[in-house]
Amino acid sequence: MLILLSSSVPTYLFLIGAMLPMPDRFEILHKDLAARIGRLSTPHGTIETPGLMPVVNPHLHLIPPKELKEMGADIIITNSYIIHEDAELKAQALEKGLHDLIGYQGPIMTDSGAFQLSVYGSVEVLPLEILEFQFAIHSDICVPLDIPTPPDVSRERAQSELQETEERLVEAAAQERPALLAGPIQGSTYPDLRKKAAAFLKDKNFDVYPVGGVVPLMESYRFSDLVSVVTAAKKGLGSGAPVHLFGAGHPMVFALAAAMGCDLFDSAAYALFARQGRYLTVQGTGKLDEMNYLPCSCPVCQSHTQKELMNSPEKIKLLAKHNLYVSLQEMKLVKQCIWEGSLWELLESRCRSHPRMLDGYMRLCAESEWLEGLDTASKSTMFYLSPQSASRPETVRYSRRIDRICLEGNVLITDDHDANETGFDHVLHFKPPFGPYPPELAETYPFNAEVPAEPDEAALKAAAENIKRLMKANPKASFSFRLKCRLEGFDEGGR
Amino acid sequence: MLILLSSSVPTYLFLIGAMLPMPDRFEILHKDLAARIGRLSTPHGTIETPGLMPVVNPHLHLIPPKELKEMGADIIITNSYIIHEDAELKAQALEKGLHDLIGYQGPIMTDSGAFQLSVYGSVEVLPLEILEFQFAIHSDICVPLDIPTPPDVSRERAQSELQETEERLVEAAAQERPALLAGPIQGSTYPDLRKKAAAFLKDKNFDVYPVGGVVPLMESYRFSDLVSVVTAAKKGLGSGAPVHLFGAGHPMVFALAAAMGCDLFDSAAYALFARQGRYLTVQGTGKLDEMNYLPCSCPVCQSHTQKELMNSPEKIKLLAKHNLYVSLQEMKLVKQCIWEGSLWELLESRCRSHPRMLDGYMRLCAESEWLEGLDTASKSTMFYLSPQSASRPETVRYSRRIDRICLEGNVLITDDHDANETGFDHVLHFKPPFGPYPPELAETYPFNAEVPAEPDEAALKAAAENIKRLMKANPKASFSFRLKCRLEGFDEGGR
Repeated sequence: MLILLSSSVPTYLFLIGAMLPMPDRFEILHKDLAARIGRLSTPHGTIETPGLMPVVNPHLHLIPPKELKEMGADIIITNSYIIHEDAELKAQALEKGLHDLIGYQGPIMTDSGAFQLSVYGSVEVLPLEILEFQFAIHSDICVPLDIPTPPDVSRERAQSELQETEERLVEAAAQERPALLAGPIQGSTYPDLRKKAAAFLKDKNFDVYPVGGVVPLMESYRFSDLVSVVTAAKKGLGSGAPVHLFGAGHPMVFALAAAMGCDLFDSAAYALFARQGRYLTVQGTGKLDEMNYLPCSCPVCQSHTQKELMNSPEKIKLLAKHNLYVSLQEMKLVKQCIWEGSLWELLESRCRSHPRMLDGYMRLCAESEWLEGLDTASKSTMFYLSPQSASRPETVRYSRRIDRICLEGNVLITDDHDANETGFDHVLHFKPPFGPYPPELAETYPFNAEVPAEPDEAALKAAAENIKRLMKANPKASFSFRLKCRLEGFDEGGR
Repeated sequence: MLILLSSSVPTYLFLIGAMLPMPDRFEILHKDLAARIGRLSTPHGTIETPGLMPVVNPHLHLIPPKELKEMGADIIITNSYIIHEDAELKAQALEKGLHDLIGYQGPIMTDSGAFQLSVYGSVEVLPLEILEFQFAIHSDICVPLDIPTPPDVSRERAQSELQETEERLVEAAAQERPALLAGPIQGSTYPDLRKKAAAFLKDKNFDVYPVGGVVPLMESYRFSDLVSVVTAAKKGLGSGAPVHLFGAGHPMVFALAAAMGCDLFDSAAYALFARQGRYLTVQGTGKLDEMNYLPCSCPVCQSHTQKELMNSPEKIKLLAKHNLYVSLQEMKLVKQCIWEGSLWELLESRCRSHPRMLDGYMRLCAESEWLEGLDTASKSTMFYLSPQSASRPETVRYSRRIDRICLEGNVLITDDHDANETGFDHVLHFKPPFGPYPPELAETYPFNAEVPAEPDEAALKAAAENIKRLMKANPKASFSFRLKCRLEGFDEGGR
């Protein structure tokens, strides 16, 4: 395979490509919830994750790939099947390589035609054929031709297509590999199949794991199902591997998806929505012709009014640029929040964009035991911002540990820091959602949490549960309560 | 007063200035909650509200006023007292006018020295003197020298300072007026005094009503008290007059303040925070030196990395520009939401930036009866996004009207649209937070609301209250329930 050793790709990368274990390809620098800041090494450079890959159509560059790079896109994705099916593009790609064909010198991921398979029912290429083609044109991340099973099919179909996918992936993983290889996780809307599929692929030495077949879920705002599917895949895969949420291109979902541990995203949305005259924001999708303002500071929106943009001969390109600017900006914000440990706070805001996003958020809250196991153990502080905050990993963690507090004699639990402590052997302060905690920890995380003046019912319920756990763990102690907030069952004077 | 008739200001404006009734100065185009899109006419042009006025220091232009205009600032504010106290500036201002002095040809509002009074305890100018000076230099919106009483003072002090303010304002309003005149509303943290002060000023023919003395509340994140004070002032003033929230410059508060009916904002924050190395976002305030990215698409953040900005010799100016871009952008978003009728949805997101913002939001929710009276009666739809959504004007409005539904015989209330309706004279569908509603209205606002898959307790409680009202209004009807959601007291089969 001499062709692989030509062009601008350093030779040593080819030599070690097939042997590199995954941890060297993907390094995790920092974590928050299941999200992480990572570094993914490819033959054409190392990128930071979470990262957004703008989709580039090999036939038509709505935004020239050089401009994409200037806008901040450090990696792009294109479709090897489209190139393979076009005799001229194919010849050019084989001759000068994918990067010169596209005009982009950073990392490029290539899809395999699986999307076309999902739309048209068949493709004119064999699985190994399109994989070898991706290798030959020097793609940085190659995707085998899997079967992207749509949501809501019968369990039988999901299972049999998954089996076919797994056979193809095993075959693909056995090939000598000059680039990174993706192992897509399918399984339709069956979380157990997704988990099983991920667990099967886990040890097969893939470099990137796309969660596939989820575009219909996102298109129909089924974010609760999306969370079910992705968290199941993540559980099967473990936390060390980079995960690509295939088809996730709307900035509205980046925070939620990153919080689940998705590391790569691809956006065709920026261009598709632009062609429909749609203007993306982190709140959702607007129709440009129905808007009065362009509420954005990107170069496009700073240099045009809504009317000027509507009437521009370059409207679609300009709108695509805005859509991409807002997407890249949101990815930067997600990364900033991961470093700060404030991704949950961003979820609180982002998941109020639509009730279906709230459904997804609530579904993720139901996975808080899982999140707790992945989240970093210390942050500077946390904000309690809604009933969903009662499901934060901090609350789950404290709830697990509160029975380690050993108490004897008379115990006062109070949220009145001026309460008369005479006659009590122990005084614990009280702050929902945690409930009772040792006052000497008041200034430390997580008890230094900023909470609303009036605790909501979810916070009170969590706090009451923790009181019960504490009392159960200390059956000989006698508990008294002096609480300003109404907490059913724990009125002044005792249980 | 010949001096008033010189310079670039059209003469007819002076002639009609003192006579113009307010509605001609301020026109309301569109409403959402207590917010509105308005047009405020000044001698140097008409601006659209809500509008943000960047504060310009007459001594030092951190961003040249010409650049402010290019960035989208259609009106600015400066301090006439600072000009008055500097012999050279004063002479220049009197000679060539405020606009040439500052280098800005749009509307300029001038403060009076009241801020200096609040900081230093006294000022070296008489109330009428500084007002006449503002007239003389052709300010567009002039502010009499009032007494900005800080929060938490004794009621006696608040009252006596308010009386002094009112005397000065009456005197100011009696002057012939070549420009718009502001009537600041004081009263410290006493809502009843704020309301009384506003009601007193209401008929005194001022053109703009600043709510003053609230900067300490915003600096210490006391947004609940801010809402109490502003809503009280608004209630006293009525809905027709333009209100300026004096000192509100952080983009985090714009949505909340606009929702209460504030029309003008002024930002010194963009420059003050820049001098402290602080980077504004709608989520809050970051420290530039602790950030890893610049999560923004403004020209500054597009052309610099965090490191480049940190090390730029123009760091403070560039940071000030970013801070102002993000502020102006948020104001555009607020306006877009007002036009769309989606300002409540923006509140749901913006008030999750900090638990103190949530406190403010919850305080506003307690004013939902008042908001209901001001909100537009029809929108396209609404999103239910948190327990606070149960306080939306739509819920309040339906709750008031549900007893108009006349029912007889057997009534079924159900959220199962396939339920067997045999034997029932009336079938009502059920959707929290509204509760029962006629199925033929399902596709109309507000019953077309998008709601989460699982209603929260606030929604269920509101719905249960509405069932009770409906049953009370129709004592002869017999009610049955087939509900999928758990609704205490309304189990299957009847009450």
